[in-house]
Amino acid sequence: MNVLSLQEKFEGFTEHWNPYIIGELNNQYVKVAKFKGEFCWHSHEHEDELFYVLEGTLIIKLRDKDLVLNAGNMAIIPKGVEHCPVTKNNEEVKVLLFEPKMTVNTGEEENTLTMVPDWI
Amino acid sequence: MNVLSLQEKFEGFTEHWNPYIIGELNNQYVKVAKFKGEFCWHSHEHEDELFYVLEGTLIIKLRDKDLVLNAGNMAIIPKGVEHCPVTKNNEEVKVLLFEPKMTVNTGEEENTLTMVPDWI
Repeated sequence: MNVLSLQEKFEGFTEHWNPYIIGELNNQYVKVAKFKGEFCWHSHEHEDELFYVLEGTLIIKLRDKDLVLNAGNMAIIPKGVEHCPVTKNNEEVKVLLFEPKMTVNTGEEENTLTMVPDWI
Repeated sequence: MNVLSLQEKFEGFTEHWNPYIIGELNNQYVKVAKFKGEFCWHSHEHEDELFYVLEGTLIIKLRDKDLVLNAGNMAIIPKGVEHCPVTKNNEEVKVLLFEPKMTVNTGEEENTLTMVPDWI
């Protein structure tokens, strides 16, 4: 049982779109990730997913609208809802994610962006 | 599906030790709370609990040590572990909580601090 510093966690990696696990509770993972550019359209059949933006501006494209998240903003994407995260002006965005342990970053899609997350 | 602003949520209430629900996912709640002073010793029999400090300094007293969380720090208290949150210098601390829907703020204790959380 330790104190986790998010700043230290973010200093520990440079890759984009590769979430790292920083905590586990109630069969959920807490993850940190750096996003930059455009991800892929996907959905998660069984899992809701929370995005909390710590730095930068994240646009979560939905089929019918865009959600624009600045630092301090949060959005929950319900299971089954197609979404595509994109960063504003191609700038880096720091994100905290909460989701079930089983969640795969690309949802039901398996492609070159699919990652099995490591702990950091 | 909306963008949540944590700042707006915190502006919507003034009470201390009364968590408000701001989101729900995978049978978990995301809550915000303002802490000030000392809470009570308690534990949660079945639920792990996440504290993420947004502003101020929170001390989570454990039976064998203290966890000191500054802004940007996080700690996960596993089920069954007795803890007592206290704010440093009796100052207000803004906290984000992530825990199962069934979690009661005072855990297995029921006392005057016990609250049924509302949505905000």
